[in-house]
Amino acid sequence: MTANPESLDRIDRWWRAANYLSVGQIYLQENATLERPLAVDDIKPRLLGHFGTVPGLNLVYAHLNRVIVERDEPVLLIAGPGHGGPAMNANAWLDGTYSELYADVTQDAAGMGRLFHQFSYPGGVPSHTAPETPGSIQEGGELGYSLSHAFGAALDDPDLTVVCVVGDGEAETGPLATAWHGNRFLDPRRDGMVLPILHLNGWKIANPTLLARIPEQELAALMTGYGYEPIFVTISASESPSTGHQRFAEALDRAFDGIERVRAAALEDERRPWPMIVLRSPKGWTGPEEVDGEPVEGTWRSHQVPLDDVRDDEGHRRMLEEWLRSYRPEELFDDTGSPFESTAGWGPKSARRMSAIPQANGIRRPLDLPGLDAHAVHVESPGGSDAGATQVLGYWLADVIARNPETFRIFSPDELESNRLAPAVFEATEKQWNAGVEPVDEHLAPHGRVMEVLSEHLCQGWLEGYTLTGRHGVFTSYEAFIHIVDSMFNQHAKWLEASAGVAWREPLPAFTYLLSSHVWQQDHNGFTHQDPGFIDHVLNKSVDIVRVYLPFDANTLLVTMSQCLDAADRINVVVAGKKPAPQWLSIDDAREHVQRGIGELGWAGNTRAAETPDIVLAAAGDVPTQEVIAAAELLRDSIPDLRVRVVNVVDLATLQSPEQHPAGLEHAAFDALFTVDRPIVFAYHGYPSLIHRLTYKRNGHENLHVHGYQERGTTTTPFDMLMLNDIDRYRLAIDAIDRVPGLAEKAADVRARFATAREDARRHTREHGVDIPVVADWTFASESQREEREERGS
Amino acid sequence: MTANPESLDRIDRWWRAANYLSVGQIYLQENATLERPLAVDDIKPRLLGHFGTVPGLNLVYAHLNRVIVERDEPVLLIAGPGHGGPAMNANAWLDGTYSELYADVTQDAAGMGRLFHQFSYPGGVPSHTAPETPGSIQEGGELGYSLSHAFGAALDDPDLTVVCVVGDGEAETGPLATAWHGNRFLDPRRDGMVLPILHLNGWKIANPTLLARIPEQELAALMTGYGYEPIFVTISASESPSTGHQRFAEALDRAFDGIERVRAAALEDERRPWPMIVLRSPKGWTGPEEVDGEPVEGTWRSHQVPLDDVRDDEGHRRMLEEWLRSYRPEELFDDTGSPFESTAGWGPKSARRMSAIPQANGIRRPLDLPGLDAHAVHVESPGGSDAGATQVLGYWLADVIARNPETFRIFSPDELESNRLAPAVFEATEKQWNAGVEPVDEHLAPHGRVMEVLSEHLCQGWLEGYTLTGRHGVFTSYEAFIHIVDSMFNQHAKWLEASAGVAWREPLPAFTYLLSSHVWQQDHNGFTHQDPGFIDHVLNKSVDIVRVYLPFDANTLLVTMSQCLDAADRINVVVAGKKPAPQWLSIDDAREHVQRGIGELGWAGNTRAAETPDIVLAAAGDVPTQEVIAAAELLRDSIPDLRVRVVNVVDLATLQSPEQHPAGLEHAAFDALFTVDRPIVFAYHGYPSLIHRLTYKRNGHENLHVHGYQERGTTTTPFDMLMLNDIDRYRLAIDAIDRVPGLAEKAADVRARFATAREDARRHTREHGVDIPVVADWTFASESQREEREERGS
Repeated sequence: MTANPESLDRIDRWWRAANYLSVGQIYLQENATLERPLAVDDIKPRLLGHFGTVPGLNLVYAHLNRVIVERDEPVLLIAGPGHGGPAMNANAWLDGTYSELYADVTQDAAGMGRLFHQFSYPGGVPSHTAPETPGSIQEGGELGYSLSHAFGAALDDPDLTVVCVVGDGEAETGPLATAWHGNRFLDPRRDGMVLPILHLNGWKIANPTLLARIPEQELAALMTGYGYEPIFVTISASESPSTGHQRFAEALDRAFDGIERVRAAALEDERRPWPMIVLRSPKGWTGPEEVDGEPVEGTWRSHQVPLDDVRDDEGHRRMLEEWLRSYRPEELFDDTGSPFESTAGWGPKSARRMSAIPQANGIRRPLDLPGLDAHAVHVESPGGSDAGATQVLGYWLADVIARNPETFRIFSPDELESNRLAPAVFEATEKQWNAGVEPVDEHLAPHGRVMEVLSEHLCQGWLEGYTLTGRHGVFTSYEAFIHIVDSMFNQHAKWLEASAGVAWREPLPAFTYLLSSHVWQQDHNGFTHQDPGFIDHVLNKSVDIVRVYLPFDANTLLVTMSQCLDAADRINVVVAGKKPAPQWLSIDDAREHVQRGIGELGWAGNTRAAETPDIVLAAAGDVPTQEVIAAAELLRDSIPDLRVRVVNVVDLATLQSPEQHPAGLEHAAFDALFTVDRPIVFAYHGYPSLIHRLTYKRNGHENLHVHGYQERGTTTTPFDMLMLNDIDRYRLAIDAIDRVPGLAEKAADVRARFATAREDARRHTREHGVDIPVVADWTFASESQREEREERGS
Repeated sequence: MTANPESLDRIDRWWRAANYLSVGQIYLQENATLERPLAVDDIKPRLLGHFGTVPGLNLVYAHLNRVIVERDEPVLLIAGPGHGGPAMNANAWLDGTYSELYADVTQDAAGMGRLFHQFSYPGGVPSHTAPETPGSIQEGGELGYSLSHAFGAALDDPDLTVVCVVGDGEAETGPLATAWHGNRFLDPRRDGMVLPILHLNGWKIANPTLLARIPEQELAALMTGYGYEPIFVTISASESPSTGHQRFAEALDRAFDGIERVRAAALEDERRPWPMIVLRSPKGWTGPEEVDGEPVEGTWRSHQVPLDDVRDDEGHRRMLEEWLRSYRPEELFDDTGSPFESTAGWGPKSARRMSAIPQANGIRRPLDLPGLDAHAVHVESPGGSDAGATQVLGYWLADVIARNPETFRIFSPDELESNRLAPAVFEATEKQWNAGVEPVDEHLAPHGRVMEVLSEHLCQGWLEGYTLTGRHGVFTSYEAFIHIVDSMFNQHAKWLEASAGVAWREPLPAFTYLLSSHVWQQDHNGFTHQDPGFIDHVLNKSVDIVRVYLPFDANTLLVTMSQCLDAADRINVVVAGKKPAPQWLSIDDAREHVQRGIGELGWAGNTRAAETPDIVLAAAGDVPTQEVIAAAELLRDSIPDLRVRVVNVVDLATLQSPEQHPAGLEHAAFDALFTVDRPIVFAYHGYPSLIHRLTYKRNGHENLHVHGYQERGTTTTPFDMLMLNDIDRYRLAIDAIDRVPGLAEKAADVRARFATAREDARRHTREHGVDIPVVADWTFASESQREEREERGS
């Protein structure tokens, strides 16, 4: 299959039209169709856009149209280069999608005027590709994620080809540099294919790009090494566009033929290198060659607006007009400003249009969630059973996988087993891996619902690509190292936030983090593995998008995860432990507790309903809750007439006031729970300041004394970690004594006993290298205490 | 130069000794020299260590000793694989460094016992390489940064070779995947060389590694593509170690010869591929082949402790003893437990020992800082001059560069010019670049003090490597995208914190971030480029390590940067604008203000000293301060009898109480400045909750009403961004009126006027695409207002 002169001419028309429309967006607020010579007031007062990357993107778009029509195959296009907004808008307007989605931006002169005016204009559309851009799942702001998005989008969509234009700027980033390896994971039999087009236009903002400046044989070797068969196409500004079109069309045909060969080979269990294209074309191609004596086309000077003084400098303004007219708009648009049939009528129709492809425009595939009862831990009495929360969850997730064989996946940076979701999930699936295998390997298979690679960036990018195209998943990682994707999280949150404001986009599946091996369970790995700050980070983003949960046992984790996977337009952060620990709530109690997100643990305290306690012991997080329960027991046993209330927080949003967060607990309920005048000793999983930040609008927040991780860590024992950070049961009990007015004197002996117990525990750790027996197995309660709890719990 | 049988035998002895000492650290708390059969109590109660990577690291160390002795060249070794602690400790003990630095860990049986006992034991040393590890600048916790550290360490140290062992796990990470390109930047004439050894032991925690499972010709192509000439060495568990030693010694000789050839070619202005080694050796090599019927050596099962039941299972314990004895310790250590001369006596001496190399063990090269006066902006009266803060700073930095031609560098992800430090710095230097150049290029040169690459990870990793080896620098980036290195920041902060507790390490140069193109100057790039949350992130780390500054004009920026570069063991975050803006303080006033870190701007308010204001308007950040000054003017002009105090905060630490932070303002001074009972309207550069978090221990914090970035953004105008987030001058003035008791009624007309002005400003933006003239150029004051300020300022 090769392109003929006629089809190349059509492509050229589309390309010129898209270029015209792109330049128009950057510069014009009036006179879109050049009815009259350009005047000062036709020009926008602020020129905020980027032309450099645009002609290359338009070239790719125009040519893909031919391929789609000829092969009748769905193609999802991801535009990696940072500033491709004008190009993607232009193409969506040409193929009609824009006018379908935005009724006022009609396919005529008036609509073209609106398309131009709104671009990068207050109240208009952003200069980058964004949720407002039809056909896009890729934010053109922060660079480096296009290729992992592409691989994620291709998973489980075997008919799809995702074409990913990789900018040579973003190709320098780490996340992009490792994303090429995606072809070692995807299965061409069950997944779609990705066709990367590395677009070397040679320049970034102010510097040449690395990959454009290494010898071509090194670049070819690099791509070979990444598992591809590179196809090189170089187009220069000095040649006629038609020869360039010819070569690029041939390259695309070779690439799509290559994709078929990869698919065919896979059916024979053979692995072939995947095709990819290296496209060299000038930055700012078709723009002004030279401005004021300085070369512009083909240099970094065309990165943003090649002519920047068009309002004040009449010469520049005339150059702009010549530039626009150089696309010969009269051949492209009729008198009403609509594109001629020959310009855009030949392109793909309806859902085959890249701007209209359903995968990219907001879709949420159904997810069949199993019930929880079969997987719940039987809890006779609070603290009466032991289980590892993530291990229990693993079996439920295996069930989710079994019910959703094409729409649910788990992603992890080599931590699935360390986080104890395996071996349970292997009852339902394997780890997907399409590189070499050896006889000793376990649970690797060409297809499977678990993706593991030692790159948090790839896990995040893949799951983003997967959820942005309507499917569901969980990213499970060590808590400390999830900071690696802080910035990717930011961009995804901003996408969801902006996306919610775009009327034609449907809600997207939730993105759920399951963070385990958390700060209190990294005693053995030491200081570097201890950081609970991701929660602080995510809570800066919109309250409508982000939720943070700290389930404190297996059943609360089950309920939480079920709720998270069921949500839409949401990023969930769930922090849960992996080690065997006492279990507190039955599944029914867990349902009620998670539903409220916050509540009293009546059986752990000794206040009757409606009675005002002397002290509130509150906790968020599994280990802090355990310590608070233990502290309450210590106090109750030693100072029986002290009225202690124990509160647990699962959903951090409940702490915020209802004015700050829709899930914030009503003030009256908050005051009833925490009191407005009694001391509150709060044991929090992470950095203590977060609790102050969340509660500063609450009555009685000055009574709040928060214990948490104080950035004190090393390789030691679990209980020693708690003591180092002043969040152990003894320290909490002592703090409670110190906070209740007058109690420190009255209970001086009790206080001293706790202090001694604490010293003993520390000495024991130093001398024996293990925790004192009473806490070593993480249960604390004696049989009689458990019985007592049971009585009160019932 | 080739290794002879005798030298190979010596290497084998060192290697066996290091392996013995590594296994001993993981398992033994007593009986280090195996004086008697292993008993239960000889075994540590918790086995917390990793053996898998250790034999490979020991192999590299032992062989490099020969190379160093034969060539008499300094080698800095960076151990990338995550869990190499036992190996590096073992080697440092063998070459004598350990006993020199830790007097109680003597080079005899008793010292060996201590070496073993302390490892991964409460109160002892971590299981990873860490500041406690002699010769290490590399934290073995989070993976992916070894190679960028290596390149950073090699800069400006032309005699040095940095050998970097890259683990095949970390090789999957993004930061590592792009770090290979470092050879396109370093100049072999003026910088040291890096020799990467990609260590393929084939497995991560629970999965095979990608690079071990792609075809060897693809791996070779990948390395060729990265600019290297790979040398492959494969050693199998089944062969005799001596043949493996022979091949690895030859590979190292080839590599070091190759380094000489690269250096020689560079002198002729030629670029040759750099040598690198791909070493395949079994994971857990020399450990138990099989345990309980499962293969262990050469599989992921040897990742941590290959035998994990040695206390309870006598069979396992016997296997451990056999394993230890398989190294033939009687040939390696004498009766007193000291290594024989033939074991370790032949190695490098004094500073040539890799564990004792000065570059790695804490050093701070002098930095000659120029004075500020020559670069200061002349400020006749507050607001009386316009300047771009970072542009002014650029000239001073050029001066820093000129005075410190071998010890100071600037790193940036293609944002130096966008952040406006260039063109000023090009008066002193160029951008270092050793890839292809074209005639149109500007300011690229084989050596230069600026390193630009579109990877925040590389910039961060390079500057870490540079400062960890005693040199100085600045990392300048867009504010929003610095989150890309959140996690690298965490690890560096933890390194500095732990390092400060290691007696023999000297203080290190500061790491300074200069964040510009900040949230209030990204109106044109839109929502994705707006995120001021890095400050929130860094403030979770130890108060001794981290400082955040928000200078509010050019002179305060100059003073701040001078102070930052002068600091030690510190991470500084400086946020400053790049756009022309009014200037407020003379350089002398700036010195005084930055020294205090917080203070009243007397000329901006209208309260006399010691008079209690009706309202305090406070600000942190350049744009918020400008808005607060404008709001104060609005209020003063309209409600002359309202007593307004204006406060500016440069150093955020001053807001914390002195108990929380050593730089916290004394409570009495804080109360005097902010009052304890008057409303405070605080305009903060970033997320408002941070100010609440910092001040919750302050008197009167419930009077604090913070305005800041509320995660509302798009592509619009600068003033519209302020209005969107309720931090514009009108909104601040209105809030002030609302907060002063009784004023809202009294000044209802004024309030209404401000509200109207605000509406007008918004409408103007929507209609004209630019800000209203009065704020469009970011100056606000009329001439008469400036004069008035001057009078009050004097």
